[in-house]
Amino acid sequence: MIAKLIIDKKREGRALGSAEIREFVNAFTSGEIPDCQMSALAMAICCRGMTERETADLTETMMNSGRTLSWEGLVTADKHSTGGVGDKLSLVVQPLAAACGVFVPSLTGRGLGLTGGTADKLETIPGYNASLSLEDFDRVVREVGVSMTVQTGEITPADKKLYALRDVTGTVASVPLIVASILSKKLAEGAGSLVFDVKCGGGAFMKTKEEARELARALVAGAKAAGRRAAALVTDMSAPLGYAVGNANEVAEAMAVLECREGYEDCGGEVGLCVELAAMMVSLAGDIELDAAREKCRERLADGSALAKFKAMVVAHGGDLERFSKILERPRSKFRIQAMRSGFIGAIDAEKVARVAFELGAGRAAPGESIDPLAGVTLAVKTGDRVAVGDALATLEKSSGPDGLEKCAGELYRAFTIVSSAPERSPLIIERI
Amino acid sequence: MIAKLIIDKKREGRALGSAEIREFVNAFTSGEIPDCQMSALAMAICCRGMTERETADLTETMMNSGRTLSWEGLVTADKHSTGGVGDKLSLVVQPLAAACGVFVPSLTGRGLGLTGGTADKLETIPGYNASLSLEDFDRVVREVGVSMTVQTGEITPADKKLYALRDVTGTVASVPLIVASILSKKLAEGAGSLVFDVKCGGGAFMKTKEEARELARALVAGAKAAGRRAAALVTDMSAPLGYAVGNANEVAEAMAVLECREGYEDCGGEVGLCVELAAMMVSLAGDIELDAAREKCRERLADGSALAKFKAMVVAHGGDLERFSKILERPRSKFRIQAMRSGFIGAIDAEKVARVAFELGAGRAAPGESIDPLAGVTLAVKTGDRVAVGDALATLEKSSGPDGLEKCAGELYRAFTIVSSAPERSPLIIERI
Repeated sequence: MIAKLIIDKKREGRALGSAEIREFVNAFTSGEIPDCQMSALAMAICCRGMTERETADLTETMMNSGRTLSWEGLVTADKHSTGGVGDKLSLVVQPLAAACGVFVPSLTGRGLGLTGGTADKLETIPGYNASLSLEDFDRVVREVGVSMTVQTGEITPADKKLYALRDVTGTVASVPLIVASILSKKLAEGAGSLVFDVKCGGGAFMKTKEEARELARALVAGAKAAGRRAAALVTDMSAPLGYAVGNANEVAEAMAVLECREGYEDCGGEVGLCVELAAMMVSLAGDIELDAAREKCRERLADGSALAKFKAMVVAHGGDLERFSKILERPRSKFRIQAMRSGFIGAIDAEKVARVAFELGAGRAAPGESIDPLAGVTLAVKTGDRVAVGDALATLEKSSGPDGLEKCAGELYRAFTIVSSAPERSPLIIERI
Repeated sequence: MIAKLIIDKKREGRALGSAEIREFVNAFTSGEIPDCQMSALAMAICCRGMTERETADLTETMMNSGRTLSWEGLVTADKHSTGGVGDKLSLVVQPLAAACGVFVPSLTGRGLGLTGGTADKLETIPGYNASLSLEDFDRVVREVGVSMTVQTGEITPADKKLYALRDVTGTVASVPLIVASILSKKLAEGAGSLVFDVKCGGGAFMKTKEEARELARALVAGAKAAGRRAAALVTDMSAPLGYAVGNANEVAEAMAVLECREGYEDCGGEVGLCVELAAMMVSLAGDIELDAAREKCRERLADGSALAKFKAMVVAHGGDLERFSKILERPRSKFRIQAMRSGFIGAIDAEKVARVAFELGAGRAAPGESIDPLAGVTLAVKTGDRVAVGDALATLEKSSGPDGLEKCAGELYRAFTIVSSAPERSPLIIERI
């Protein structure tokens, strides 16, 4: 294999052979091929694309670069979200599917940039170990039915190395590269059925419906090509999901949903979306009709068994929910913003809300940075709600002193659009793939 | 400047600002920007292109990365060829233009890959120093009227570093990058008029007329934008130029042309092309009509003054033509290939001839490798010539023993196409820009 000729081929827009992809990526992972050649190939892929077959080859190569898990004899499924603002759905969806009898081995990530990671949220529960060994992960999945932990370095090391390079070389924006990155990890994780929640809009990586649809289709096609059952939803991420955007407050909201607490029956459509995603997992994995699966999920949410699964998972990971509830009561700096005109909430800009939560300390700019578990934004309204002057729009919170709170509050106010007449409410689910 | 955002911008096909180009390339040259980011940007430029303004900015940045020469008060010109098989034209053109009173400061390169560099050819003359300091270069140009030496590291270090990276990352094939690389060096060299010989065909970097035309236009436009007079020819490189392909044999052929030796009056169109290129230099630099310049060049070639300039340059560089002629008489391994059918030479594949010359030892695969001055191919026929069975087609030569000669001879035979009826002779000059 001559690396340069492979790069030339892709630059000219030709499809690479399976062996060419395998040898190039393996040589990059082992360090034989330098970063400068890999980044040139990645950019050529950004510009010229890849066929489904090439994407499948890249995915397989990356999947096989590390350990792969197997759940023989178990009915397994997982859900992957491309990431959104206030996206705490996994905390509800995965336990809910487990409550329906599906085993859910869920390797998740830490947040980087504006949107937080599920692992960061779970780690605000004192004691929660989100860095299980693969052996412990295996045990928790089999004993509890669901485990959520950070993927270890043993899984898809090629993806880890390539992603770090793409991040600094402007080569993240490529459907084949995104698909291979997501799928290689999900395939290595070993779940038999995969449900993808591809978000689109200002608060998501994919800004347009068309881009999101393309990614969703490619993910489903890739998963099926690898012998898994798969389906996807394209969902709206123009406004934050639910009310809480942060870390501990998102866990608290997820628990309120699991507890079916009063006022959290809909949560701006969040509950319906959770049920839908869990139902898709149950339907695919259990080979039953979606309607029946949805009915089952509603029951398991209502009867408290999803909450029980969540609690059992937390305990199995060493987490202490008693202490978590005390954390939520800790003193902190708060600032409430209110409506300066009356009308209806026309829009809540997810990206702006995320930026404020990030400023407050809810996110990290570089791997390894610590986050403030209590930092974040909690909305008081959702799109379509009626407000009068002086009504609360949202509360900003952080653990440290009030420095910077007012500036953030000013920015957060600009995330809200107040209009004179009631806007049409658009559904969260845009398309089913 | 955030490097990643600049890469993103180009990946999306947008034009970069002047300051963005300057800061990115300067930071790469100084080592602040790592290779992986530069190669990603280079690939994005390959795929998305650059506007004329961007190309000019890149050229200027690279030109200003090192020393720039100035020839105030002198009428100066240089010729640049994009490189071809048997392309020893500079050895004739530059002295010929100097014999017409134009000063020719010519920084040249060493060969890499299949086609040899002018410096390598000149260095087969014992004593010829092709690595003059810029001070000595200045002196020789002013005293003799022409100097040909390798560009030093002081000239366009940005180009040197970028070219080395492009070479291994599949990012050579881009008109804006090629233009910036060629022009930055030629502009730094300081000649007031520039003539470009852009070759196209199997033995050239540009395979098609369209590609060659695009490059020629971009070079002329870039040179003019930088305040120089400029013109270009697109010339045919499907067959080797003249008869000799190698190093010492090419110098010998150039001297035979300069001596107007019998049998070298035309040299398969090579002499006409040399006169044309020199005339363009003289016409641009001296601001005289091309016809008059052509007439003057023919006179200076015929009266021996071009040969005298060549000899004076060699002497000024420390070269010894007496010893060179003895080198040409050295014993060596030879193999003559002959026609196996009668007819007309329909085509001589320049790339195949170059590959054989390279195999024999006339080129280098990596910088710093030594070359065999006597290795090469000398054609006995040109396209259109009539041959009978047994007539010589070419001779292969190398300094070392005969190992491998027969295999090379077999390959060389396949470079010749013999046809039944006389083919149309196509002119070397395809287009004037």
